[in-house]
Amino acid sequence: MNSMPPIADLDLRRASLCQLLHWLAVGRVQPRVLADVYQQAIERIDPGLHAYVDQRSGLLQDQAELADRRRRDGVIGRLDGIPIALKDNFDIAGWPTRAGLPGRGRPVQEDSHVVARLRASGAMLLGKTNMDEGALGAVTDNPHFGATHNPYRHGYTAGGSSGGAAAAVAAGLAVAAVGSDSLGSIRIPASYCGVYALKPTHGEISTRGMLPAARRLDAVGLLARSVDDLTVLLQVLAGYDADDARSRRRRVAFALPDWEPGNLRTGLLPDLAALGVQPEVIEVFETALAKLPHALGELRTVDFADWDFARTRRAGLLLMEAEMLGTFAADLASTERPVSENFRRLLGYAAGKSAADYAKADRVLDAATLKMRRLFAQVDVLVLPTTPQGAFPLDGPVPDSQADLTSFASLAGCPAVSLPMGTLPNGMPVGLQLVGARGSDLRLLELAAVCAATLDAEPVYPAIA
Amino acid sequence: MNSMPPIADLDLRRASLCQLLHWLAVGRVQPRVLADVYQQAIERIDPGLHAYVDQRSGLLQDQAELADRRRRDGVIGRLDGIPIALKDNFDIAGWPTRAGLPGRGRPVQEDSHVVARLRASGAMLLGKTNMDEGALGAVTDNPHFGATHNPYRHGYTAGGSSGGAAAAVAAGLAVAAVGSDSLGSIRIPASYCGVYALKPTHGEISTRGMLPAARRLDAVGLLARSVDDLTVLLQVLAGYDADDARSRRRRVAFALPDWEPGNLRTGLLPDLAALGVQPEVIEVFETALAKLPHALGELRTVDFADWDFARTRRAGLLLMEAEMLGTFAADLASTERPVSENFRRLLGYAAGKSAADYAKADRVLDAATLKMRRLFAQVDVLVLPTTPQGAFPLDGPVPDSQADLTSFASLAGCPAVSLPMGTLPNGMPVGLQLVGARGSDLRLLELAAVCAATLDAEPVYPAIA
Repeated sequence: MNSMPPIADLDLRRASLCQLLHWLAVGRVQPRVLADVYQQAIERIDPGLHAYVDQRSGLLQDQAELADRRRRDGVIGRLDGIPIALKDNFDIAGWPTRAGLPGRGRPVQEDSHVVARLRASGAMLLGKTNMDEGALGAVTDNPHFGATHNPYRHGYTAGGSSGGAAAAVAAGLAVAAVGSDSLGSIRIPASYCGVYALKPTHGEISTRGMLPAARRLDAVGLLARSVDDLTVLLQVLAGYDADDARSRRRRVAFALPDWEPGNLRTGLLPDLAALGVQPEVIEVFETALAKLPHALGELRTVDFADWDFARTRRAGLLLMEAEMLGTFAADLASTERPVSENFRRLLGYAAGKSAADYAKADRVLDAATLKMRRLFAQVDVLVLPTTPQGAFPLDGPVPDSQADLTSFASLAGCPAVSLPMGTLPNGMPVGLQLVGARGSDLRLLELAAVCAATLDAEPVYPAIA
Repeated sequence: MNSMPPIADLDLRRASLCQLLHWLAVGRVQPRVLADVYQQAIERIDPGLHAYVDQRSGLLQDQAELADRRRRDGVIGRLDGIPIALKDNFDIAGWPTRAGLPGRGRPVQEDSHVVARLRASGAMLLGKTNMDEGALGAVTDNPHFGATHNPYRHGYTAGGSSGGAAAAVAAGLAVAAVGSDSLGSIRIPASYCGVYALKPTHGEISTRGMLPAARRLDAVGLLARSVDDLTVLLQVLAGYDADDARSRRRRVAFALPDWEPGNLRTGLLPDLAALGVQPEVIEVFETALAKLPHALGELRTVDFADWDFARTRRAGLLLMEAEMLGTFAADLASTERPVSENFRRLLGYAAGKSAADYAKADRVLDAATLKMRRLFAQVDVLVLPTTPQGAFPLDGPVPDSQADLTSFASLAGCPAVSLPMGTLPNGMPVGLQLVGARGSDLRLLELAAVCAATLDAEPVYPAIA
C-alpha cells in the first residue's frame, strides 16, 4: 500500500472525515502528514480568512507524533489523527475560553466534555475559531478579534455565531469543527458557507465546559463536509453526563433507522415568501425539492398560522440575554477591557426586562414543544431553507431574520440538519434544513445522506484552494 | 355476602382506599352508601373544618347511581365508586377553577388530565378543597374563602397550600385527594394533618388543566390514608400526555422494585437543629428512626454543607411569583374583586426582580439536579422530617421555614413521600419524608409501606369522628 502515490494536499483538505479515516487506516496518509498539510494551509490562508483566533502549531505537531505512535502500535481511537477545530466557547485545559470577549485571557483548568471526548478518540485539536462577541449574533464580525470572511467571497459574512468554525471547514482548514447552537449558531454559518451541520436533540451531547448562552436552548453543534462525518462525530460525542444537569439518558437509538425514506411524510411551510425568505432562496429550494421526490415521499403543507417566527425568536433571545447578564457580569463590569457598546446595548435590552417577562418568554418554549409534538404526529420531517438569505457583505446591513427559520427547533429542543442545497445567482451557497422530532437525529441524518447524494451539490470544493 | 352485617359509617370513613375497594368488590358496601356516608359527614363536620370550598351533593348522588349501575353490570374501573376530593386549582368542566382567588367564578370548559383520568377510572368527585390564595403559602388561611382548620385541633392550621385536601382526608371527609406540590404544598399539609402523601417524579403525572404555579416546579400530588392507596392512585394517574409540554415518557418501571429494604443505604442530614427543625420534631424523628433499623439498612450522614436550604427555597419562590404575575395578571388588575394585599405584596417581590434574577434563580434548579444526582449515587434514599415543625395556631405567627425541608426535592424534580411518623407533645402529628432519585417513585412507596407498618403510627383515626 505504501507504494501507492501520495494523496495531493488539496485532496487531503477536500476529503471528508470518513474518507480520511479510510486513508489513515490503509496507510495512504499519516497523522503527521495531515497535521503538516492543515497547519501549512492555515498559515497560508487564514490570515486572509480569519477563521482562527487561537492556533498553536507546536501543539498540533505534538498531537500528530502521539497519533503516529498509536497507529504504529495499532491502538487507535475512533477519530485517531483527524484534525478538528473548536469554537472559542469550549474549555480546553490550559487555554483561555474567550467566547469573543476581550477580557477572558485566563487559562481554564479543565477540558470541556466535548474536548475530553475528542481527546479520548484520538482527534487532533487544531485550535479555536472566531465567533460573535459572547455568541450573541450571527455575523462573526467580532469587534475585538476581527471579522471572519466567507471562504466563497472575501468581504462577505461567514454567518455566526460559529462563523470561524464553519469557515475553517469550508476552506479546508479543518476536517470538522465543534461549535454551539442556541438559536441557529451552527446552522446559519453552515448555510452561508456551504457545509453540513447537525444540531442534535437537546441533552444528547453534554454542554459541560461550554460557556452557557441560555441553558434551555444550548446545544453542542457539529460542522463537517459530509453527512456521514456528522454521524461519526455524534457517535463519539453523545451520551449521558451525570455532571451536566441538562444531559439526558440516551434516547436516540443507535441502531438502523426504522423508516423508509420513500414512505416519508414530509412537512413544508405554507408560504416562505411571507416569512421573509428571499425569492432567489425560494427558487433554489424549489429546484432542490424537485430533485428529491423519491427521497421526501409525500409532501404535506403544515399549518404554521399560529406561529410567529420573529416573536418566538425574540423570546429565545431574551432568555439568552438575561442569562448572559449573569454569565458575563465580570466582562460587563470591566473598564480595562470593555465589551463593545453593541454587546452592552443588546444585553441592556434584557436588563430592562422583568422576571415576569422572562417567565413569559420561557413559556414560549413549552408552546414550541407542543407545536413540534403535534407537527411530528402528522409528518416525519419538516423541510425548509436553513436561512432566509445567503451570506451578505460584512459592510452591509444585517438582516433581522437570520435566525427565524432555525430558532424554533432550538426552542423545542428538536434535532436539525443543514446541508448545502445549491447556489444562489451571486455564487453563494445556501442550506436545506431538515427538522425532526426529539430523538430522531439518526433518521434525520439518514435522510440527509439520501438528499445530499441526490442533490450532489458538492459546494464545498470551490472554497478550498 | 350480603348477609354479613353492614360496616359502620365511622369504619367506612376510616378505611383506606384499598380496603374500600375490597368491600365494594365483595358487596359489603355500595357506591351509593359510600356517597351518602361521605356526603352526610361533610354536611355535619365541614362547617367547622372548612376543608371544602365547592361541594355539590346532587352531583355525588348522580355519580353514585352510575357507579352502582356499572357494578351491577360488572364493568368497573380501577377506582370505581371511590369518593375523591380535588384541590381547587384543577379544572373540572362546568366548574370554576378559583385557586383561592376571588375573581375566578367563570366555569371552565374542559376537565384537567387528572379529572379525566379519575372519571375514566370510575372515581366519584366529592368537590373542591380550600387552598392558599393562588397556591402561594402553606397555611390555608384564605382571605376570600376562610381558614381550613386542622382536624386534630380547631384553630390550628392544616398546612398548605393543599390544606383543604389534607384536612378532608384526615377527617374522613374524602377517601383520598389530589392536590399540587411546587415546593411542598402536598407534603406540608400531609405532615400537619397526619396523612400519607406522594409528590411523584416531575413529568410523571400530567399537569394539564392544573393552574400553573411554576412549570418547572409543579407536580400533581396525592393524599391518602395509606401508602398502598398512593400507589394505586399513581398507577391510575401517571403516564405520558402529549398535550403537556412537561410530560415525559414513562420512566418509572411499574414492575416490582429491585431493592431489598434491608440492604438500603439511607442518607441522613447532618444537623437538623441547625436547619431550624424544632427539638420536639427531632425527638419524634429519632424515635421513629430507632424503630426502623431493619427497614432503613445502613445509615449514612450525607454532606449538605454546600446547600443553603432557605436561599434555594427563596429561588424557587421567585420562579413561582414571577410566573404568577402572568398567570394572575387579570386577577391582579381587578378592582371589583381584588386579591388580598398580602398576595399583591408577595407577587410585588417578583415584580421588582429582573429577567437576569430569574435566570439566576433558575440556575439553582440545575444545581439542585446535580446535587441530587450526586447524592443518590451515594445513598438510595434520603430520610428527614417533612416539616421543621408541627401545625401551629391559625392566629399565631407563620414560620418562614415551613418549606425548607420539602423544596429541594421540588427544585430537583425528585419524588418524595410523606408518612406520619408520630405525635408531638402537644398531640399534633408530624411527617417523615423519604426522597429518592428521579424515577424511583415505586421503590420509595415500597419503603414507605415497610416504614408505615413498622411505625404503626395510625395517627389518622383520632381525627375522624
